[in-house]
Formats: sequence, structure tokens, C-alpha cells
Amino acid sequence: MNGKYKALWLNERGELVVLDQRALPFEKKSVTITNTKECVEAIKNMTVRGAGIIGNCAAFGIYLAAIEFNSDIDRIKKSAALIKNSRPTAVNLMWAVDRMMKTALSYGGENLIQRLKQEAIAICDEDCKHTKKIASFAADIFEEIMKKNKKDKIDILTHCNAGWLAIADEGTALAPIYELKRRGVDVHVWVDETRPRNQGANLTAWELGEEKIKHTVIADNTGGYLMRRGMVDVCITGADRVTLSGDVANKIGTYLKALAASDNDIPFYVALPSSTFDFSIKDGAKIPIEIRDEDEIKFVRGLDENKNPVKVQIMQERSSALNYGFDVTPARLITGLISERGVCKADITDIKKMYGDLL
Amino acid sequence: MNGKYKALWLNERGELVVLDQRALPFEKKSVTITNTKECVEAIKNMTVRGAGIIGNCAAFGIYLAAIEFNSDIDRIKKSAALIKNSRPTAVNLMWAVDRMMKTALSYGGENLIQRLKQEAIAICDEDCKHTKKIASFAADIFEEIMKKNKKDKIDILTHCNAGWLAIADEGTALAPIYELKRRGVDVHVWVDETRPRNQGANLTAWELGEEKIKHTVIADNTGGYLMRRGMVDVCITGADRVTLSGDVANKIGTYLKALAASDNDIPFYVALPSSTFDFSIKDGAKIPIEIRDEDEIKFVRGLDENKNPVKVQIMQERSSALNYGFDVTPARLITGLISERGVCKADITDIKKMYGDLL
Repeated sequence: MNGKYKALWLNERGELVVLDQRALPFEKKSVTITNTKECVEAIKNMTVRGAGIIGNCAAFGIYLAAIEFNSDIDRIKKSAALIKNSRPTAVNLMWAVDRMMKTALSYGGENLIQRLKQEAIAICDEDCKHTKKIASFAADIFEEIMKKNKKDKIDILTHCNAGWLAIADEGTALAPIYELKRRGVDVHVWVDETRPRNQGANLTAWELGEEKIKHTVIADNTGGYLMRRGMVDVCITGADRVTLSGDVANKIGTYLKALAASDNDIPFYVALPSSTFDFSIKDGAKIPIEIRDEDEIKFVRGLDENKNPVKVQIMQERSSALNYGFDVTPARLITGLISERGVCKADITDIKKMYGDLL
Repeated sequence: MNGKYKALWLNERGELVVLDQRALPFEKKSVTITNTKECVEAIKNMTVRGAGIIGNCAAFGIYLAAIEFNSDIDRIKKSAALIKNSRPTAVNLMWAVDRMMKTALSYGGENLIQRLKQEAIAICDEDCKHTKKIASFAADIFEEIMKKNKKDKIDILTHCNAGWLAIADEGTALAPIYELKRRGVDVHVWVDETRPRNQGANLTAWELGEEKIKHTVIADNTGGYLMRRGMVDVCITGADRVTLSGDVANKIGTYLKALAASDNDIPFYVALPSSTFDFSIKDGAKIPIEIRDEDEIKFVRGLDENKNPVKVQIMQERSSALNYGFDVTPARLITGLISERGVCKADITDIKKMYGDLL
């Protein structure tokens, strides 16, 4: 699988290499991960981010733990616990580790390391297949919206980054945009800057720029006003955890855009692989929401006048800041959930119908 | 009036001096304005900002034009047109220039310059009186909310800056917070960062810090989630223009917070001097909304590691950005409008009742 995926891959020595997403778009560099500690650190400090890619990284983390601890299952279990605790909200992380540990515990064969490597690759391969299906289902919906709105182009608003930097192979929210481009549709994307870490301006705008897809970055404050002016046809975001009743935890600010979409009768879709569901939780208020360091608000990365990357302080020191990483959008504000299985309403009946075998 | 006001004043030579609001909170410096061109530039580039202070600056701009053009009324008229066109949304600017020109045109006495100076000072003095009344009316409401919520403290969310940097003498939205502190109330303010120019993080947090009032800066994305968690008792903002039917143009992003407040049954108040009403417009969609340079999104000011002020680029160059300065919050989302006359509902009947003499 060397080089097979874009956001993370194995090198010729079998080590995990991840794109350093903290450095984009100003620098393209990678970080090599060889053990549990490095895996946990890369997830915590957001070298690796995006629900799917975190899950992939965690899966390879279990494989690396098997190497690190000579397949000692008790040591691997401890690694699994550390990796699962690296971030609290995105459930793909826990899902991937659980799946890897199920394999580790049930495997009776000789080469556990090889088996775990296969399983981690299988998870990535499945994500790739899933994003292709999501792309197709969502692009169909978007073409319908164009027809309904009697327009020969479509303006799509997205928040944060749910492209190939977030989920192999093409992302969730951005996958249908890549698909629309392949279909020859005239597509334009409103990219929420997504403070405080600016994943929209830094990552989504970069991805779209690489693919020469028309896009405009806006302050997070702006989307509601664009909707009121009729400048948005549809919204789509990814998700970090979706409950049995269809409440969606996603990047902080998603809820505000869903409110504005609802207020302006604009469809609001959430795209996710089924591994992002947490069927054990019904009420979104029960989803653990990460609080990150206030320095993510107080400092920002950019380029100085000589185009060198620098970190600058953008607030006075004496003020404190509070940095919730996610919010929860209630199901009532969501038009539909789009996964590799198709589209369903964000309600318990429809979710049970489509995902009953996973409950 | 030398030194009488805090955000702008006349120096001993009779020139206008304004605090450079672009430099705060990292540097405290001022800019001297002596003619029409400098007045227009200071308003355009936001050396001076905030609906009221822009109006004050524009009023003194007419006085300075009278000096510049030896009281030649035709030349002063041209200056008035230039000053009125410096920014489109905040109506206090037009209101103040119109009032100054009415004085200029009707005055038959000897020293027009002196008369215009008096009139500009009268406008500032009236603003000071008005903010004190707004402070009192709004603080009463906030104390009622505390009682209703059975809390011995109050958490107030505000967007952008409507403090003494925006309206002499204590602001609109922040004036009642200063008043609550004087009354001994335990008050804490959630300060929206307010991208792209960060007037919340740069100006509101600085004002509150100077007064030792408890506050926490949050990304603009966060307020909705705080409301869902019950961490906000009331929202209050200023306004740049309010229509006859109560629609409110204010800093971009205000609409999103008003939606969230409404969705969570949290009162949302707008504080304004009556000069911020534009009774000639009924529908908020008719308010001209300024589009500012995309570089305000692409670059940010901060301190480098040596604590020197720097401007850094925070987006890739190849992406474009769209920078609406304001949005319009529909009257239906606003609990009440608080002016120097008292509190009224944001609807045409109540507004006509309270402001009928101004129509």
C-alpha cells in the first residue's frame, strides 16, 4: 500500500507516514510514526485529523504496537487504551481500535503483526470504497437540487474539512464535489474558514485549489447572510459522531450553519461512513465534546512578509479563551444523512431501518 | 473638550485626534485628522470604527472642512458628500453629516467654524447622555433576567465591539455591563472573536480587561453551542442601522447568534442610540451592506515571538475570499431594542409609538 493513500501510508520499512496537516497549506511535509507514543501524540496535536484518517492512523497504531511489543497482547491492549483516549469526540477512532483489537484477540495464527497490518489496510480500503459511494449518492442529490432551483450551476457551503485529508480516499463532504466536477457540473464551494484552527481556509481551500475547483473562503460569520441572499443552494458537512436518533457532533459552528439553512429552507446534509454512527447513544447531548487548549484561539499560524511560516499571538495575554472543538446539531435541522448505504432521514426510525444489522 | 472623550478628541490646536483602533490591543497610538481627505481615509481604513464614533468623526470632519475651505459652503458641501460616502452601512455617519450640514446651511452668523465645532461637540455630548440611559435600561433588564433564572451571576454574550471605542461615552452593548459592575453584580461576558477583523478579541476584550470585568474570548463558531449548554443568559449587540420594522444591520455574524438565541429561548437585545434608526427603510434587505477587501480575511495582525506587531498571511494566495462587513437580523429574532428612550419591541407598531416624533 506504499503511496496508495494520500493522507497516510506505510513506507518501505513498514512505518506509518502521515501528512503533517498542521503545516498545510504553507508547507507540505510528513511525519513518521513508529510506536504508540508517537501515534497518540500525532492524533492529539492534530498532525493527523479528520474522523476517518484518525481512525486509519489509530488502526495502524495497533499494528505498530504489535511490532513495538513483539506481539505481546497485554502490552497491545495498553496501547489500544492510550490510543482510544487520545481524542474524545470522533467515534471512528474508538471504532477502528475496537475492530483491530477484536482481530488481535481472536487471531490464533503465527504472524500477528502481518495480520494486523492487513486489517488496518482493510479499514483504509473500505473507507475508500465508502467515500466513492457517498460521492455518488450525494452528487445525485445535488443534481436534483440544481434541477429544482432551475440553475445550471450549484453553490455548496461546507464547514471545516471533510475531504481526502479527513477520510480516505476522497472524503465525505468533499467527495460529491469531486464527483460533480467529473460529471462536468459547474460547481462553486463556499468554504467556511473554520476558526480557531482554520481547517476550511487551510485544508479545504487547499484541496479544492489542487483540483482547480471554484471556491471562495468566507469568515464563519458570513454563511448565514449568504443564505439570506440566496447565494447558497445546499450545505454539506462531515461528522465526528452521529447518534441513533440522528444528532450530529461535528466541528464547532456546524450547528449555527444548520440553523441558518433551516431558517432559509436550504437543504443541510451530513455525509459519513457508517463507522461514524454511535448507536449506543440516542441523545446528542451525551456525546463527549473535546475542550482544546486556549492557545489555538490565541495564536495563529501564517506566513510573514518573507513568506516564512510563523506563529503569531492574536489576542492580549490577560484574556482567557474557551475552545470547544465540536458542537451537536440536533437531528431536526438535518435534511438527510448520506453514507455508503444511501440516504436516510436523521431520525431513529429511518436510521434503524437502514442500519438495523449494525445495532 | 480636550481629552473629554476617550476614542476621539480635539487637541490644543483644534485638530481632531482619534485612537487608532487598528493598533489595539497591542499598541495604543493615535492619529491626527486635519482635513476632509484624512477624515475619509480614517473612516474607510477603520482607524476609526463603531457606528457612533464614525458619526462623531464625520461631524468633526465637517468642522475641519470649514477650516480647510475658509467656510466656503460649496466646498464644505463637497466634503460632506465625500465623508458620507466613506462607508455605506452605519447610518449614524449620514445622520451626523446631515445634522452638521443643516447647521452649516441655516447658520447666518459670523464664525461658522466655531458654530460647527459646537454642533459636533453637542453630538458627542448627546451620545454620552444616551449611552448612560441605555446602560440603565439594559442593566435593569439584565437584573430581571438574573432573578428569573434564579442565578446570582449573569453570563452575557456579545458580538463585535459596541463599547466606548464604538459609541461615546460607554458604548451601547457594553454600557450596561459597566453599569452592572457599578451595581455590584457578578457579571461575565462571552466575547465573540468577530472575524475577520477580530473587534471582539482585539477591542471588546481589551475594554473589559481595562475595567477588570470577567470575560472569555470564544471563536465565532462557539456561541451556539454555549447556548445549548445553558451557559448564556442573554445576548446583546450594538447596531449599524435599524429599520422602521425593526430589522437590524450589525456586524456580520450577528444573525447567526440571534438564530441560536431564538432556538434556545435566550433573550437577544440590540442597544442603539435613536440616531441609528433609519426610518426611511422598512425592509432590512434594503440596507446597503458593505463588501470590504478580501485581504481582511487573508491577513491578520498579531505579535511575533519578540512581541513586535506583525501582519501575517493566513490563507493560500490562490484562493479568493468574500468579505461582507454586516448582515441583517430580522426583527422576529430580536427580543427588544434598547435606546435612550427605553425598551421597545422590534416591530413597526412599537417603534412608531416610541419614535413617532422622529418619523
